[in-house]
Amino acid sequence: MTWCFIVVLKALSMINPIVHPGMVSLVGAGPGAVDLLTLRALNRIQRAEVVVHDRLIGDDIMALIPAGVQRIYVGKAARNHAVAQKNIEDLLIQQARLGKRVVRLKGGDPFVFGRGGEEVQALAAAHIPCEVIPGVTAATGCSAAAGIPLTHRNMASSCVFLSGHLADESREPDWRALAQPRQTRIFYMGVERLAQIAQRLIAHGLPASTPAAVVQDGTHASQSVLAMELQSLVQCAPAYGPRPGLLIIGETVALSPHYQLVQPVPDAATAPCRA
Amino acid sequence: MTWCFIVVLKALSMINPIVHPGMVSLVGAGPGAVDLLTLRALNRIQRAEVVVHDRLIGDDIMALIPAGVQRIYVGKAARNHAVAQKNIEDLLIQQARLGKRVVRLKGGDPFVFGRGGEEVQALAAAHIPCEVIPGVTAATGCSAAAGIPLTHRNMASSCVFLSGHLADESREPDWRALAQPRQTRIFYMGVERLAQIAQRLIAHGLPASTPAAVVQDGTHASQSVLAMELQSLVQCAPAYGPRPGLLIIGETVALSPHYQLVQPVPDAATAPCRA
Repeated sequence: MTWCFIVVLKALSMINPIVHPGMVSLVGAGPGAVDLLTLRALNRIQRAEVVVHDRLIGDDIMALIPAGVQRIYVGKAARNHAVAQKNIEDLLIQQARLGKRVVRLKGGDPFVFGRGGEEVQALAAAHIPCEVIPGVTAATGCSAAAGIPLTHRNMASSCVFLSGHLADESREPDWRALAQPRQTRIFYMGVERLAQIAQRLIAHGLPASTPAAVVQDGTHASQSVLAMELQSLVQCAPAYGPRPGLLIIGETVALSPHYQLVQPVPDAATAPCRA
Repeated sequence: MTWCFIVVLKALSMINPIVHPGMVSLVGAGPGAVDLLTLRALNRIQRAEVVVHDRLIGDDIMALIPAGVQRIYVGKAARNHAVAQKNIEDLLIQQARLGKRVVRLKGGDPFVFGRGGEEVQALAAAHIPCEVIPGVTAATGCSAAAGIPLTHRNMASSCVFLSGHLADESREPDWRALAQPRQTRIFYMGVERLAQIAQRLIAHGLPASTPAAVVQDGTHASQSVLAMELQSLVQCAPAYGPRPGLLIIGETVALSPHYQLVQPVPDAATAPCRA
């Protein structure tokens, strides 16, 4: 245990303490598990004077915020992004102008579906100094936890991250390209639209037997992984509950120890699928 | 400082100590900077009895390995992957069978161009227990460090990770799809092939004026970022040295504070570009 702290001291001593009052740190909190925080993220949380956080930050990460530090919850309603985002940016600017060390704590990585870019732009326009601290994004966190490589020799030479919320339906993803083989497709918050995504991919030529997985509560103790052929997953996943989750589609899903062979059935109500 | 250690103690106490003798931990060491290690990665490094590591692991991360722990270097020659990879897998199996706690330390994330999947498969075939610890992958580490969002409202609704080593040239990426707008393209180790990649993308319709960046030594103190229009980058980057680096191509690159407007010139030798 003593050695452990010497090492932690050594590691923390290497962190350049560039935070200062009136500055905003956009901090990626990682995919969920508290020990998947980076050392730099932990350092910034320790030094914060106010923490502005999303709904996806777990209780055990919140518990690392020192007592007495102000916490401001800005969880966003799914249908009301635009207004809320502007409010968040104004709040960050306002807190920084009070001379505080502000931590904007976000699930995953700030620059991958985290709207970090918009906050950086707003802060820059207001001449507020800021920094971005990367985190383990949900795709890599869940892929490690579920045993699904995102790239793999002869199976997937690339991977692509998309949002399962197809925000503007007039700008659909390039389904034809996504249906091509040898890539891993990761849809953030993709469970709600699983059936629609599967239908589009299959219509553009992806085999319905392509391995696919839903990872819910990824990296948490409550994590669940449902992995099977895409056509079976569409039948099984809705029964699996409405929790948000990551959808991974590609050959490498078959490498997961969670992968199961489940025959699709004509009547989805009888689908023999439980995790 | 005391508070800091209480917090670290609290965080480390939440780590499930599942490592045991005869087990292999595939550990993502992150993009470079020592404080972008996760707490879990640090925990595994502390508890290792042997560390098998790549050439991309920096000295300051290596310095976290406790004294007396065996270190085995398995840096791979670029042209000789297949043989070396089999040897690495055999080595991991051999060390685990000696009853050691083995850490396989890899730059970035083990499942993103890290060949972690192959090592997991080899270990599973040999009935060696293993775990995969995700890391901050180079794409998100460098994007944060260079101020380049990977997704951004109205600019990039997806991002795609590819290898700049086009391992099998008969299986080229889907250049037509990659040339489409509203996505960020990240080529790992993409600097060497920058000219070829740019030529293919432009031939398939990507505007030559698309913002693009080369990030070298990303997240290290020695980091350099060269960001400009793709056609200018092709002229400027070769003069910039042979260090490996990440290539990012997409509209969001223009948001980086490193972005500069450099006119392409007919004679590349006179290109007025320095970082």
